[in-house]
Amino acid sequence: MSLSSAVGLLIDSAAPDPAARLAEVQALLARDLGHVESLLAQAVAEGVAPGTDAASHLVLAGGKRVRPLALLLSSACFGAVGEPARQMAAVVELVHSATLLHDDVIDEGDERRGRPTSRRRWGNAVSVLSGDLLLVHALERTRQHAPEALADLLATLRRLVEGEILQLRGRVQVDASEHTYERILSDKTASLFGWATRTGARLAGAAPPEQLRLGEFGERLGIAFQLVDDLLDYEGEQTGKSPLADLREGKLTLPLVLACAEEPSLLAELRRVHAGETDSVDHIATAVRRTGVCRVVRERAIAATDEALAALRGIRATPARRLLEGVASELALRAA
Amino acid sequence: MSLSSAVGLLIDSAAPDPAARLAEVQALLARDLGHVESLLAQAVAEGVAPGTDAASHLVLAGGKRVRPLALLLSSACFGAVGEPARQMAAVVELVHSATLLHDDVIDEGDERRGRPTSRRRWGNAVSVLSGDLLLVHALERTRQHAPEALADLLATLRRLVEGEILQLRGRVQVDASEHTYERILSDKTASLFGWATRTGARLAGAAPPEQLRLGEFGERLGIAFQLVDDLLDYEGEQTGKSPLADLREGKLTLPLVLACAEEPSLLAELRRVHAGETDSVDHIATAVRRTGVCRVVRERAIAATDEALAALRGIRATPARRLLEGVASELALRAA
Repeated sequence: MSLSSAVGLLIDSAAPDPAARLAEVQALLARDLGHVESLLAQAVAEGVAPGTDAASHLVLAGGKRVRPLALLLSSACFGAVGEPARQMAAVVELVHSATLLHDDVIDEGDERRGRPTSRRRWGNAVSVLSGDLLLVHALERTRQHAPEALADLLATLRRLVEGEILQLRGRVQVDASEHTYERILSDKTASLFGWATRTGARLAGAAPPEQLRLGEFGERLGIAFQLVDDLLDYEGEQTGKSPLADLREGKLTLPLVLACAEEPSLLAELRRVHAGETDSVDHIATAVRRTGVCRVVRERAIAATDEALAALRGIRATPARRLLEGVASELALRAA
Repeated sequence: MSLSSAVGLLIDSAAPDPAARLAEVQALLARDLGHVESLLAQAVAEGVAPGTDAASHLVLAGGKRVRPLALLLSSACFGAVGEPARQMAAVVELVHSATLLHDDVIDEGDERRGRPTSRRRWGNAVSVLSGDLLLVHALERTRQHAPEALADLLATLRRLVEGEILQLRGRVQVDASEHTYERILSDKTASLFGWATRTGARLAGAAPPEQLRLGEFGERLGIAFQLVDDLLDYEGEQTGKSPLADLREGKLTLPLVLACAEEPSLLAELRRVHAGETDSVDHIATAVRRTGVCRVVRERAIAATDEALAALRGIRATPARRLLEGVASELALRAA
């Protein structure tokens, strides 16, 4: 099914269960996403095992493909989805996977998307190298299929790495300031979403102000996305992620940052966790829940979604724009 | 001192002690290399600590800058050294440093260039991220100052990573075939030298066949360089590298590959080292030395140097070409 007929179908059939909307959008974009899947499979097959094994393990484990979806829909807002956009939809997932592989080494995590991490299965060395391999693939494809998006991708990669470094620093030396948290959020998570939506628009020939709007939509969506993920550490449902995993790994999350501001005594406890003096995080988790900050985080996630939706307002009302709004609203519903 | 006057000086003063020639070339190119040093210092200062700390620690520890030197001289063979060439001389060192940072995680090494590795000092996470940061810096600079060299750099990065993966695989599952060794040698070491010399020529406006010759020179030089390094594991002088470090880490070196072909019983012992069943490598080292393969490796290093020199033969005899020949001959002398 092509994107345009998929969009037509969606318009005809308003999804009755809002929680199922993201899945429905994915199903409706089956053909475009299917093409992206084949590009991904091809990318991870190029090269030398065990680097390709680890890359396949992660890339083909099947994430939600939210970033490729956002890129494709952003392109569709301005016309037909072309081959460069499909290539870049694969690229954004390759870059995301590369950061996950390096994250696994950094976090020393054991599980990702409900499966053992590459680090645990193949060791640090393979995770580092397969991450490097995916990154090089992504850059080569960008240079080849959408060279106009390369400078922006490199600037985005710089933000990704700097966000990671800032996050890492916070783990060594506890820094629970909201300012630091926001920088990490923006650089580590929002940046790649912003690149995806900006690039989708650009490749479809959108005017520069429209590209900026789509980029803003992506950045805000990314922020909402991460805030919901932060919440799940405390109110976790079935996410394939161990509950309190972020807390145990010493990652700053907004619930934690806000709770420390409410109850400064938590900072000392957090420092003990960071220093490896205790494994027990239950007391901190209980305190975070007690302060009621999760409600505040939820409100901020919804506010970020609203900002994302506002950025789309100047864009011509096409079926694709409605689908983008659907993705954003779905996210807000996960938070609510 | 400019490159041309430096070259003039060198021509006037034939270095009396051949072993000091590389140092003399470095001293004579002081101004160009000084500019490269300031670009490197600037690059590692951009960004967020501790990523920048680890990057500075390594980059400013002062390697021999053989790759930047080779790039500058290759440019000088075809005219004045321009700003793009100086930028790319910094880039080749940034890329080399990025691979060393990731190597430290992969090798779990404790020492590099006579100083504790970043991995040991800051941990795996910082080494991974500072390597990523340097790589992104390098790519951004290339896109900005020498976009025509970017596709070639990405292809080179792919070879670098694939060479690393192949080497890693050989550590898990002992593969002492000469063919595998040669692929690793070519992809992991020779490729970046080849990019450096090819790019130097290209940026100075050399014709494509001349670029190819300079690239061939660099690849052969890189092979000679690595073979000498392999030898030093067994006949190590003062290199800032622990003797038998490669052997202990399970890295394939040519002496080892050739010795295993002579005495197949060594393979079983090597497997025990790889499997972590024994730490003792002295018996293997003694056997390698006894077989006399080091002499063969020395001859191959000299042969690779001769091939490098042969590749330069079609290039106009300029002072810069003589300096390049000097660098190559110096290497052959280290081997001899």
